[in-house]
This record gives sequence, structure tokens and C-alpha cells, in this order.
Amino acid sequence: MTVQDLIDFFEADAESNRDQTPDVGIVMGSDSDLDTMAGAAEALTDLGFTEETDPENPPAGYSFETWVVSAHRTPDLMYAYADTAGDRGLDVVIAGAGGKSADLPNMTASIAYPVPVIGVPVQEKSVDSVIGMPTGAPLTAVDAGKSYNAGLSAAQVLARSDSDLEARLERLHDDRRAGVAEVSRDLHDRGVEGFRDRRDD
Amino acid sequence: MTVQDLIDFFEADAESNRDQTPDVGIVMGSDSDLDTMAGAAEALTDLGFTEETDPENPPAGYSFETWVVSAHRTPDLMYAYADTAGDRGLDVVIAGAGGKSADLPNMTASIAYPVPVIGVPVQEKSVDSVIGMPTGAPLTAVDAGKSYNAGLSAAQVLARSDSDLEARLERLHDDRRAGVAEVSRDLHDRGVEGFRDRRDD
Amino acid sequence: MTVQDLIDFFEADAESNRDQTPDVGIVMGSDSDLDTMAGAAEALTDLGFTEETDPENPPAGYSFETWVVSAHRTPDLMYAYADTAGDRGLDVVIAGAGGKSADLPNMTASIAYPVPVIGVPVQEKSVDSVIGMPTGAPLTAVDAGKSYNAGLSAAQVLARSDSDLEARLERLHDDRRAGVAEVSRDLHDRGVEGFRDRRDD
Amino acid sequence: MTVQDLIDFFEADAESNRDQTPDVGIVMGSDSDLDTMAGAAEALTDLGFTEETDPENPPAGYSFETWVVSAHRTPDLMYAYADTAGDRGLDVVIAGAGGKSADLPNMTASIAYPVPVIGVPVQEKSVDSVIGMPTGAPLTAVDAGKSYNAGLSAAQVLARSDSDLEARLERLHDDRRAGVAEVSRDLHDRGVEGFRDRRDD
Amino acid sequence: MTVQDLIDFFEADAESNRDQTPDVGIVMGSDSDLDTMAGAAEALTDLGFTEETDPENPPAGYSFETWVVSAHRTPDLMYAYADTAGDRGLDVVIAGAGGKSADLPNMTASIAYPVPVIGVPVQEKSVDSVIGMPTGAPLTAVDAGKSYNAGLSAAQVLARSDSDLEARLERLHDDRRAGVAEVSRDLHDRGVEGFRDRRDD
Amino acid sequence: MTVQDLIDFFEADAESNRDQTPDVGIVMGSDSDLDTMAGAAEALTDLGFTEETDPENPPAGYSFETWVVSAHRTPDLMYAYADTAGDRGLDVVIAGAGGKSADLPNMTASIAYPVPVIGVPVQEKSVDSVIGMPTGAPLTAVDAGKSYNAGLSAAQVLARSDSDLEARLERLHDDRRAGVAEVSRDLHDRGVEGFRDRRDD
Amino acid sequence: MTVQDLIDFFEADAESNRDQTPDVGIVMGSDSDLDTMAGAAEALTDLGFTEETDPENPPAGYSFETWVVSAHRTPDLMYAYADTAGDRGLDVVIAGAGGKSADLPNMTASIAYPVPVIGVPVQEKSVDSVIGMPTGAPLTAVDAGKSYNAGLSAAQVLARSDSDLEARLERLHDDRRAGVAEVSRDLHDRGVEGFRDRRDD
Amino acid sequence: MTVQDLIDFFEADAESNRDQTPDVGIVMGSDSDLDTMAGAAEALTDLGFTEETDPENPPAGYSFETWVVSAHRTPDLMYAYADTAGDRGLDVVIAGAGGKSADLPNMTASIAYPVPVIGVPVQEKSVDSVIGMPTGAPLTAVDAGKSYNAGLSAAQVLARSDSDLEARLERLHDDRRAGVAEVSRDLHDRGVEGFRDRRDD
Repeated sequence: MTVQDLIDFFEADAESNRDQTPDVGIVMGSDSDLDTMAGAAEALTDLGFTEETDPENPPAGYSFETWVVSAHRTPDLMYAYADTAGDRGLDVVIAGAGGKSADLPNMTASIAYPVPVIGVPVQEKSVDSVIGMPTGAPLTAVDAGKSYNAGLSAAQVLARSDSDLEARLERLHDDRRAGVAEVSRDLHDRGVEGFRDRRDD
Repeated sequence: MTVQDLIDFFEADAESNRDQTPDVGIVMGSDSDLDTMAGAAEALTDLGFTEETDPENPPAGYSFETWVVSAHRTPDLMYAYADTAGDRGLDVVIAGAGGKSADLPNMTASIAYPVPVIGVPVQEKSVDSVIGMPTGAPLTAVDAGKSYNAGLSAAQVLARSDSDLEARLERLHDDRRAGVAEVSRDLHDRGVEGFRDRRDD
Repeated sequence: MTVQDLIDFFEADAESNRDQTPDVGIVMGSDSDLDTMAGAAEALTDLGFTEETDPENPPAGYSFETWVVSAHRTPDLMYAYADTAGDRGLDVVIAGAGGKSADLPNMTASIAYPVPVIGVPVQEKSVDSVIGMPTGAPLTAVDAGKSYNAGLSAAQVLARSDSDLEARLERLHDDRRAGVAEVSRDLHDRGVEGFRDRRDD
Repeated sequence: MTVQDLIDFFEADAESNRDQTPDVGIVMGSDSDLDTMAGAAEALTDLGFTEETDPENPPAGYSFETWVVSAHRTPDLMYAYADTAGDRGLDVVIAGAGGKSADLPNMTASIAYPVPVIGVPVQEKSVDSVIGMPTGAPLTAVDAGKSYNAGLSAAQVLARSDSDLEARLERLHDDRRAGVAEVSRDLHDRGVEGFRDRRDD
Repeated sequence: MTVQDLIDFFEADAESNRDQTPDVGIVMGSDSDLDTMAGAAEALTDLGFTEETDPENPPAGYSFETWVVSAHRTPDLMYAYADTAGDRGLDVVIAGAGGKSADLPNMTASIAYPVPVIGVPVQEKSVDSVIGMPTGAPLTAVDAGKSYNAGLSAAQVLARSDSDLEARLERLHDDRRAGVAEVSRDLHDRGVEGFRDRRDD
Repeated sequence: MTVQDLIDFFEADAESNRDQTPDVGIVMGSDSDLDTMAGAAEALTDLGFTEETDPENPPAGYSFETWVVSAHRTPDLMYAYADTAGDRGLDVVIAGAGGKSADLPNMTASIAYPVPVIGVPVQEKSVDSVIGMPTGAPLTAVDAGKSYNAGLSAAQVLARSDSDLEARLERLHDDRRAGVAEVSRDLHDRGVEGFRDRRDD
Repeated sequence: MTVQDLIDFFEADAESNRDQTPDVGIVMGSDSDLDTMAGAAEALTDLGFTEETDPENPPAGYSFETWVVSAHRTPDLMYAYADTAGDRGLDVVIAGAGGKSADLPNMTASIAYPVPVIGVPVQEKSVDSVIGMPTGAPLTAVDAGKSYNAGLSAAQVLARSDSDLEARLERLHDDRRAGVAEVSRDLHDRGVEGFRDRRDD
Repeated sequence: MTVQDLIDFFEADAESNRDQTPDVGIVMGSDSDLDTMAGAAEALTDLGFTEETDPENPPAGYSFETWVVSAHRTPDLMYAYADTAGDRGLDVVIAGAGGKSADLPNMTASIAYPVPVIGVPVQEKSVDSVIGMPTGAPLTAVDAGKSYNAGLSAAQVLARSDSDLEARLERLHDDRRAGVAEVSRDLHDRGVEGFRDRRDD
């Protein structure tokens, strides 16, 4: 497996016009970013998306794909991925990178334009580098490590033209709200000490 | 004109089911933020959107609306605007605020969910406050003052289901690229001193 | 238990005109903030306040209540709590939140006004977001994690019209001062090494 | 006029038991801080307070006084002012200082305790120094330069036992809210360009 | 003039094997960076380098070239420039960019490798983004705006195998040293006030 | 033991004109700062100073004393210590405090003036607060946690009029220099891997 | 005038054993730092020191000298100045430098040891570099730009063995204190508005 | 072994004109920096360099040497090392230091000029101090702790006149690229959960 093999795949896939393609692409600069970036996959899964792992047998319904693409070690691979994103049928790309020179999200956004890219700074120190795009080069970012929110945001984009997906987003939210109500009542009724005693049992 | 008048308008508009509604809402915490936030309107205008100023005579085609909504001075107005955003037919909200407690984008995102909200930190010191949303409360942000990019990003969302708008985004980009090529050739051929001399003439 | 149930309770309580109500309300954005926010309850308890856990059987004397209220996951609950604070008889609200967008204290202050709100940044990175209110929207803040001081400050407000409570504040302080005198004398008389040897025994 | 003259005045005033004393004391580290600190006086004046300039002819109703007290150049004066604050009848002290070692608010809070002190960092770089009090030494702070809010917060403290003052706080707020509504409607109805054209005429 | 024209030129030049090629390439993200980046050209000129402005009539001796290459607006141009740098005969590339996402130096270094790239952060806020390369992707940086030093550093690289150029570097330095001696003696002998009086005449 | 007892001791000692008094006073805001501040005592001990623990039996030769003095919990004790420092015969005071409002060094310097005070920020976040004195209020500071250097600096002050102490400072330095020479030779001769292997055995 | 000439002078002066030598040396990295560093000369002058400008005709009483010494452009001159400081009879060196690599104060302190060196960061961004000395290499620093305080601190060192100089330090301070008393009384008696009106007349 | 012994060695070596000398010198401020700085030796070793540990038996081919040189504890040793670097035949010096006053790289660059020096900030807080050189004093820096990249950069300098070394740099890079391709394919084909399960087995 070489970098060129992957480039060839992306270019061939862009020309293949296959029916069923992933809606969302998740890319990260290194597999050491995976634990942070897995939240994007988790959010999409919570919303009913399936991960495409075999392009020849794509899943039905909404799907996403996941790749490692390094801006600094494999700039040609990054270029090819971003350059083919629109033709391969991706509707949103979620791109995450760490370090102070987190170039992957920004370069992906510049090359894949007008496909929208959501940047995920993998570390706190990556925020400035991800968010700081010049006028004319749009990218939107979530906070450091908040890849789960990037997954939700990607779904919000798709939900603009799909009311069923919008309903799924609302159901997911309702569960979170109910959790707040439960714990709020519990804390109040037990009191601070009672709540902590029970929690620490 | 009172805050309640505006709240009444938003609530009535949400129930009116009128045909033609703005696609994008632009809100800002104060009219002192307008010069920074005007970039969002400019980008949308560059892409052919029209500003709706009279809801009874809405423009044809893509449109946007602009309001001042203060999180800290008029929390009830902010709540009403965000709460009615989906029912009023807005597809994206661009929200900008300055200061260190730039709560407007975040609260708007939390209340308008699942309508996507793009946050614009009006000052550098507003970035942390805008971007720092907790897991489960999605908002994406552009860099401080980059409201023009927020306008492009809003259009990228709408362009996911409109290839004509996507083409307009590409044409706008091509103009920028041509500008780079011109100035690059000019700088190279005149040399550093020649280029500066001519520029400063 | 739903968010709406809690909202209904706060609204009903605001209209109930019950005799004995909590003097201080402590709210936090998540129960994960509880260990940091418990200091406020501790300070009030040290000053003789009782935690009200059952509104139908309120304690005599000064009391406080504790709730989880999330600005971003349950903005309607936050709105209802702050909006009813004055009518429910709260004299001071202590509100704490973590993260970079610590919106709970600020929004609570804006909505509950003119009831005074003391903001507690739960993390160092929350300080800017909590303290940065615009002119006309008052909130006072303590340092990151200093919820114990927020409890003392709340009592200082109430003590303006209650000399007995003021005396309790002074007695609490005297104990701290005596501790400094003891350890200062002990360090001096044993010397640096002698003091450390004994401490580490 | 010497520092000792002022110390003597504060000590004599503390023992005088005069009937009418200022409710709020405003102190600042230097008269170069006055333009920033004047906001506190402005807020109190907006709420109907009068500035006491002649202790022998004190104004009726709520009043405040203003002094320059330097922590680093006149530590004895600072000590005397804070130490006599309670006995002189002050209910709240607003203390502002600039620089990175903005010690005046903190030391005043420590010495004047249990009289509540609201700290105003006169510069952005003063925030850390003002807010960073250790556990057991309460002080609440407003944001850098927000002395107007400190004035409102001081009034909020006094309003806990005075519903008339509370009503004045609410009226002041209503004016601000109406201003937001006016400008919001104006911006919307004129549109971004129309609003700016008119503003810049 | 289009971006593609420039790409075609770089690719043709890389295959041309022309005799005389520039030794140093200076690239910047925008012509608005020129005043900051001109220092690199100035340093090289001070050392006897000539700017090549017409590749068909290259200057004799050491030379450099200058281009505008935008990472975010023209990623394909950036890619082509960096990718052909080695084959075009460049020995060092000096790359400068501003903003918080100063990707040009980093991406150029990654693509042009093993040609050494010296990054120039055009603004203070660009430093982190320029310097923060991951292990395995070498780039060295100078301080914000210090393009003159980048020019000297590029010459230091070439001087490793050219003692004449090394001598020129030393002569340039001797002039600076003499300036320090003159002003030091002058300040000492006139005294602080005398020196300032004369300077301000 | 009360705070007043200590104040009484300092005031009595200031009037006692006893022959042998400590040359250096070390004060810290809390005994939790002791492990950081112990370096000052260590440096002085390395230079032959003795810690005075019983004022009635003072040691011969150079000596120092150590106390806990809290600016925020015991401002009166801090005032008394600093105010009597000169009369008690202290030649230098080393004052350390932690937190963001590290007021002890600054206030001690302001009150003890013209006795020189060396400030030790106990934490990194204390640096700004310690160093930021206004013009006219001198204090010099060492880096966060560098109390050992504060001890050396105090001795440097005393050594201005004592060549024997100056010689001791030089001997202490020579030992450090010899250590560098040893390890440098060892690293070079073993090589990086050899040195590490041996070290980790 | 060459750098070597100055080095020769310092070395010859160190061996000359002349009777009257400057007590304080003020060095700065560039004459562009002079306006900031002049405060040190001003403080010493306020205390009765004379600037020595002609070593062959040294002034009577306390004196100081002023030189430009660049760590990065003339490291040999810096080395010679610091290395001869003790033998030339300097009792304190005040060293100021700007930029982020403000090496002059630190290197001077390391080389001149055990002569005490007071570092003056000429810019805010120089503070970290000046203060950050490792254990065993003492230097004390004042805040950015506070060279006047460095002058006072240098005099405090000399005053340890000269009660007349100590008395001069106290007189200087008394003037500052009187100024605070005057303005404080003036502000109070005129009131905020009256004071500002008069000031702005 | 004394500091003077090492100085004598460097000076003698500079005059010896021995045939085979190290190409790259690695210096660090303390052996506690070794684990961070070892990356430079590792990179050079990966490229076929040998470490010279016995100058009398120098290795054939490219070589490097490693020393501890402290700017603050042994400024004379630092001076001698940098001053002899060119005459000893070093082509590049890699200098690393920690702390906020990381003076070693900067001073070495200033003294060794025109030999190029690559600075390695050993800690994040060392970056500003290392990179912040004034105009005319060139030094290039890598990111905090990235000594491996400094080793690659040093080799890039030497490779400008050695195509074999350039080829070795490319082979090293190819290995890294292949690693990215492998893990990218693996992550994609297993999917996020499958990849993590296997990794954590």
C-alpha cells in the first residue's frame, strides 16, 4: 500500500459516478488523533449513519468514511482527497488535526471548496491555526476536541433538505435535556451532601 | 417600538406560514458591531441574495434579514428570535457578538437547534467565548471579524441542495484566484523595488 | 421528570407567595461542576444557613437551594429559573459554569436582574467568559473555582441589613486569622527544617 | 494637606457617629484612573445618588464619596480607609486600580471585611490581580473598566432591603431595552446599506 | 494571466535544465505582506544577490526570485511552486505568511522537501502556526517580521560551500558592530541628557 | 497565640535595640508555600547564614528569620511586619506569595521602603502580580519559584559592603561551574547513547 | 571608534585602580531603548547621583555611567563590560533590553556575578526572557519599562551601608505621598464632576 | 575537569587544523535537556552520521559532537565554544535550552556567526526567547522539543552541496509516507470501531 495507491483510488472513484457514496468524509492528520476524532463518527452513528468501509459494497442510507491524511507528511494525498471530494459526492468533510500548525482542515477547505469543511482542532493549541482563515477561504470550526459536535453540525447541514434527519437531531437532543432534568431534581432533593454521598458510594 | 413588539412579530411570523421567507438570518449584539458584521451581508449580496427589509413584500430568490438582538440587555428578544427561527423558515443563522462574554451566538445556537448557527466573534477576545460550546450543543465558528466567510459558509450549506448556488460560489472564487495570478506575475516581473515604486506612486 | 416539570415548578412557586423561601440560589451548568461549586454551600453552611431540599417543608432561618441548570442544553430551564428568581424571593443567585463559553452566570444575571448574581468560573478558562459583561448588564465574579468566596460574598450582601449575620461573618474570619498566627509562630520557632521535618513525620 | 491629615479624618469620622453618612465609597489608586472610574459615580447618579463632598453638610438620600488612595505609595492611608469603612457607615466599597499589581481592591476587601468590596480592574492587565483572591478573602469583580456596572452592582446590594431602589434599577434597565428595540427595527427596515448610509451622513 | 499559466511556467522551467537559475526563492501569501517580506530581498541585495525578474535573461552570480503564492486561495499554485522548487534549482526557499493560519511556509516546506525552507511569520499571531511542524517535517523559522534575518540565514546556508559569500556575511556584520561602538561612546561621553538633547535637535 | 501577639512582638522588637538581629527576613503568605520558599533559606544556609529561631538567643554571624504572613487573611500582621522591618534591623526582606493576587511582596515593599524587598512569585500565575509595581514603588523580583536565587540576591546586597561574603558567593558559584564541566566532558566522551545508558542503569 | 577600542578601555580601567569610579552602571541593548532606560538615570539624579561622562575627571559623590552594549551584535563587548564590572568598582549594574530575546540583562548578570544586576525589560514582551533565570544564576527584575524603579532599587542596595542615602530615599518618597494626599482631598471636595471640569479647563 | 580545561581544548582544536572534524555540533544548556535534545542525534544517526566521542580518533564520513554548555552558569565556556565553531570546522550548530531565558541558542548564534545555528526551545515557554532575535542577528528555530527536525534541517543545509546526503533525506521521508498510507487504508477498511478494537487488543 502506497500513498499513490490511495491517490489513484480517490481519482478513480471521482470519475466512477457510482450510485451510493458517503455523505460525510472524516479525515485526520494521524491515527494518534483517532480517539479525539472518533466523536464525529459516534455522533453520526447516533443519528443513524453507517460507516462505509468497502466502497464496492456501500451501505444504504446516510454513510460516512474515515481516512488518515497528513498535510505535512503526505501533502499529495491531502491534495488528492480534497480535490476529489466534490466529485466523489461528499456533502461535508470533517477534518481534524493537532499541533500548532494544524494545516489539514484549512488546506482541505481551500482545496475542496465549495464543499463545506468543518475543522476540529485536536488540541487546544490547534484552535488558532484551524480557525484563522483569511477572507474568501471559508471554514467553520468547533472547539478543541469537540468532534462530536462536528458530527452534529455535519448532520445539521444535511438536514436542511431532509426533515427526517432533522427529526432525528431533535430526538437526540431531547434525551440530553431529560438527563439534565433528572439530575437537577436529584441534586435539589438530596441536597449537596446527600447527592455527593450517594454518588461516591 | 418596544422589545415586546419585536417578540410579537417573530411569534406571529412563525405561525403565519407565509410563502417567501428569508433563508439566512443575520443577528448581532449591538449596532456597534455592524461594520464588522456587514461582511456577511456583503458575501450574500455578492452571491445574489437580496436583503428582506419588508416582510410583507419579500424579495424573490434567496434572501436574508438583519436584526440587532442583545443577549445581555434583551435576553427575551434573543430567546424569541432563536426559538422561532426554524418555524419562520430560516435555514441558517449567522450570529455575531463582541466582548469576552459573547453569548449571543452560543445561546442562539442552543435555542434555535437544529437550525445551524454560524458564530462570528466580533473581536479577537470573543473567539474563546463563541467557540467553546460543550458536547451536544453544536455551533461552528469563523475567525474574529470574518463575517464575510460566515456568509460564504451559510451559502455553502444552502448549496448542498442547489447546484446553481454552488456554481455561483465557484465563480466568486475564480475571481479571487485570478487576482492572485495577476499580482504574482506583476511582482515577479517588476521585482520587489519596481513593484513597490509603482504601487507607491 | 422533564425539563417542563421543573419550569412548571418554578413558575408555580413564583406565584405561590409562600412565607419561607430560600435566600440564596446556587445553580451550576452540570453535576460535574458540583465538587467545585460545593464550596458555596459549605460557606453558607459554615455561616448557619440550611439547604432547602423540600419546598413544602422549608427550614427556618437563612436557607439556600441547589439546582443543575444548563444554558446550552436546557436554555428554557435557565430562562425560567432566572426569570422567576425575584418573584420566588431569592436575594442572591450564585451561578457557576465551566468551559470557555460559560454562559450560565451571565445569562442568569441578565434575566434575573435586578436580583444580584455572583458568577463562579468553574475552570480557569471560564474566567473571561464569566466576567466580560457589557456596560449595563451587571454581574460580579469571583476567581476560578472560588465558590467558597462566592458563598461569603452572598452572605455579605444579606448582612448589610442583618447585624447578626455580619457578626457570624466576623467570627468565621477570626478563626482563619488565628490559624495564620499559630502556623507563623510554629514555623519561626522550629525553623524551616524543623517545621518540615515535623510536618512530614 | 498630608496623608496623616486624611487618616486622622477617617479615624475621627469613624468615631463620630454622625447621622448621615455615604452609603457607597469609591476609591481609586490614582487620579489618572478617574476617567475609567467615573462610570461608578455616573451609575449611582443615574439611580438618584448624590455625591457627598462636604461631610459637614451631607446630602439627603443615598450618597457616595470619592477618594484617591494608593496601595503602593500610601499603604497607611489605604489601611485607614478600609479599616474605618464599616464604622464610618459605608455599605459597599467600589475600589479600582490599574497595572499588573492592582492591589488596592484586594487589600481594601481584606481590611474592610465584612463590608463588601467590588473590585474594578482599570486595565485589562489588572483583571488577574484583582480577581485572584484566596479562599476566605471574598471580593467580587467586574470586567476591566466596567465601573458603571460596579455602580449598578453596589445599588443591587442596597436594593435587597429597599424596594424603591430596586424599582429605580428596573426603570434604568427599561430604557436600555427600548434602545435595543429601536435600533433593531431601524436596522432591519433600512437594511444594512441603508442603515449605514444614514448613520454616516 | 491565470493561475494555470503560472503553474505551467513552473513545470516547464523545472524540465528546462537552464544553466542559470535563482538560488533563493521568496514567496509570500499576499502582496499585502510585501513590505514585511521585502527585508529578505534587502538582505540578499546587501550581500550582492541580484533579483531575477526575467528568466530568459537571468543575472550572473547569486540571484533570487519573488512571487505571490496563496495557500488558501491558490493551493494548486502553491503546490506547483513547492513541488518544482528542487528541480528548478532553488537551494533555499523563504516563505512568509500572515494571519493565524499561516499555512504557506509549512506546506511549502512539506512539499519542497528536501529543499530547506525558512518560514517568516508576517505577524506576531502567525508565529505558532509557522513554527509548529510535526516531527519528520522540518522547517526552521525566524521571528515575526524578521525577513531580513531570513535573508541572512539563506545566505548562511549557501555560504557553507562558498567562502567568498561567507566573507561577505562577515563584512556586513562588521558594519553593524561599528555602529554600536560609535553610539555607545557617544551616549557615554555626552551623558543621557546631552545625547537626547542632540538627538532631538 | 493570636495575630495581635505577633504584632506586639514585632513592635517591641523594633524598639528594643537589641545587638544581634536577623539580616534577612523571609516571609510567605501561607505555610503551603514553604516547599517553594525553602530555597531562600537553603541558599542562605549554603552561604553560611544561620536561621534565628529564638530572638532571645540570636546566632552569631549572618542570620535570617522565617514567618508566615498573609496579606489577605492578616493584613494587620503584614503591615506590622513590614512597618517594623527597618527598625528591627533587617537589611533585606524576601517575600513570596502564590495565586494571581500575590499582594504580599508588593505591599511589604511599599510599607518596608526603603528596606529592599525581593519578591518571589510562588506560582507562574503570580509573576505579573508580583512584578507589576508602579513607578516610585520599587520591588525587584525573581522568576516563579526561584527562591534560591532570591537568597543569592539578598546575599549579593549584603556583600556590597562585605568582601568575605562576596568570596563565599564566588566559591558557591565555582562548584556549580565545575559540575557543568564534568557532565559536559562525560556526555561528549560517552556519546548520547552511552551517557543515557549509564544514567538509566 | 571600534568595539575593540571600548573593550580595551574597560579592561584597562579594570586594572587602573583609579580612586573614584562609578557606583552604578546602566547598559542598554540599543540607543532606541534610551527613552525607556533614561528613567534609571533620572531616579539616580533625583537622589543626588552625578553621571560620569569623562573617566579622567570623575565627579565627586555617588555617580553612574551609561553605555550601549548589544548582546547579539556585540557579544564580545557585552562580555568585556560584564567581566570587568566588579574590578572596575561598579556596585550595581542596571541592564535593559527589548524584544523577546532580551539576553543582555541575563548574560550580564551571569558574567558580572557576584555584582548584583537589576534587569529592565524594555517591552512587555521582554519580561519572560529577562526574569526567567535558572537556579544558581541570580538576577532580579523590575516590570517592563520601570527603569525609574530600577534606579531606586540600585540606590536601596547602596543605602544598606549608607544612612545618608537612605534618608534621601525617604525624602523622595515623602514628596510622592504628599502628592497623593493633595489630589485625594481635591477629588473628594470638588466631587467627580467638579474635579474633571477643572482638570479639563 | 574544569571549565577552563574545556575552553583550552576548544581553542587548541581551533588552531590544530586537523583533517577530520565534526560537521554538526549539538549543545544544550544542561544534561537535563538531553532526553529532549537526543532527537537531533537520532535524526543525524538515521541519516548515517556518526557521533565523534574521541577527537583523536574521529569517525569517517559525516559526524557530530555533543556537549553541555550553560549560558548562565558557564558563560565563558559558551563563548569559547561558539567563538571557535567556525575555526573548528563545524558547518551547523544545533543549540537547545529550556526555561524562559533560553539564551544559549541566541548567544551561540550571535558569537558563532556566520556559522548557521538552529535553535531548539526545550520547553514551550522557551520558544519566544529562542526565536526573538533582532534584525541583523540571524538564528532559525524549530518548535519546542522538535530536536529531531533540527537534525533534519542541519542535514538539509549540508545536502545543498552533497546529492548523496539529499538522497538519504528522501529515503527517510519515503518511509514515513508509506506509514501514513498503511494506517490510512487500515483505518478506512476496518472502520473506526474495528480499528480501535484491534489496536487496544
